[in-house]
Amino acid sequence: MRYHKISDETIRRLPVYLRDLLTLSQQRRAGVSSNDLASLLGVNPWQIRKDFSYFGDFGTRGVGYDVENLIRQIRKILRLSTVNKVALVGVGNLGTAVMAYPGFKRYGFEIVAAFDIAPKKIGKHIGDVRIEDITALHTLYRRQIHIAAIAVPRDAAQETAEAVVRAGVKGILNFSPCYITVPKRVKVITIDIAMDLARLPYYLSGN
Amino acid sequence: MRYHKISDETIRRLPVYLRDLLTLSQQRRAGVSSNDLASLLGVNPWQIRKDFSYFGDFGTRGVGYDVENLIRQIRKILRLSTVNKVALVGVGNLGTAVMAYPGFKRYGFEIVAAFDIAPKKIGKHIGDVRIEDITALHTLYRRQIHIAAIAVPRDAAQETAEAVVRAGVKGILNFSPCYITVPKRVKVITIDIAMDLARLPYYLSGN
Repeated sequence: MRYHKISDETIRRLPVYLRDLLTLSQQRRAGVSSNDLASLLGVNPWQIRKDFSYFGDFGTRGVGYDVENLIRQIRKILRLSTVNKVALVGVGNLGTAVMAYPGFKRYGFEIVAAFDIAPKKIGKHIGDVRIEDITALHTLYRRQIHIAAIAVPRDAAQETAEAVVRAGVKGILNFSPCYITVPKRVKVITIDIAMDLARLPYYLSGN
Repeated sequence: MRYHKISDETIRRLPVYLRDLLTLSQQRRAGVSSNDLASLLGVNPWQIRKDFSYFGDFGTRGVGYDVENLIRQIRKILRLSTVNKVALVGVGNLGTAVMAYPGFKRYGFEIVAAFDIAPKKIGKHIGDVRIEDITALHTLYRRQIHIAAIAVPRDAAQETAEAVVRAGVKGILNFSPCYITVPKRVKVITIDIAMDLARLPYYLSGN
């Protein structure tokens, strides 16, 4: 089943809903109203109802939404129900942190390969993953790894992006603090950690 | 000057606008229309105009917005014009990556202190910052450090949050992959890196 015409904005919010629903699920909450969900997230209830209306009517008026059902539906829409294999490029501090980050599994992601340019790192293991020479990137297509996480220094980011695109990658998670340009068919999500921090001072001044 | 009644949703979007405006500024673009900005960001032009309307009229119809002026205004609203001192708690892989992350400076943040519990780390330096014993957290208030970045293991996150709150911290950036509970006067922003990744598979399936 395809879900057409879902706006980028809604797709951007779905993982946020999912995260909070997973927390509610851990707390063994069975149902949640759009008002409760809205206050948890700090958004408008009408926005939640509008977002959810894209995929048919999940909720029952007066009763609210079934938490487990919502989780299942959102996972399905975001195509997180199956395991998504990820290759990490750049095993410095940031890359090592990305590999160690326990949050990925919650969303069905598994880092199954890691690449670096430094000879002293190549051949070492992080967990079960052996660090490979960056020249072996071309094997990604054969190994059916379609997502790359890029955590290389700023200067190497564009070059690395082009290399993973040549290796058949369809989606890039860019942790390097700069923009990268890729063909339109490749989707890039840039993670700017500092950007999330940027709204904090606003709240520290007595608003 | 105070800007009242700005919604959380708008505050959430302002850093995103700022990031892209900074990129435009690097590319020496002087002006930008709400339509251009909207297509850059993948949001609706009306939303941008609505968000900007909170702070008076930045733009000129038909001409668009002045990039440098917008940057200045958004920095002012978000209170990023001055340096915000940050203390890092937890200098493991994630914490080290956070310290090494060059993006913070762009938003006026400076990590000026770091704390850990491991004796072998205490006294070592990362850049100019000496790693201190976690028992010295109480000095934060005196040192006028009001923001803490928490990058400790999941099990220690709540306890650490309570310790930084006791130390007078007003804002927490939580990198640990779990929720923390703090008094209402303290603002917490939880960074879930995996959540950003979660919308990638949707785009890899021919939508």
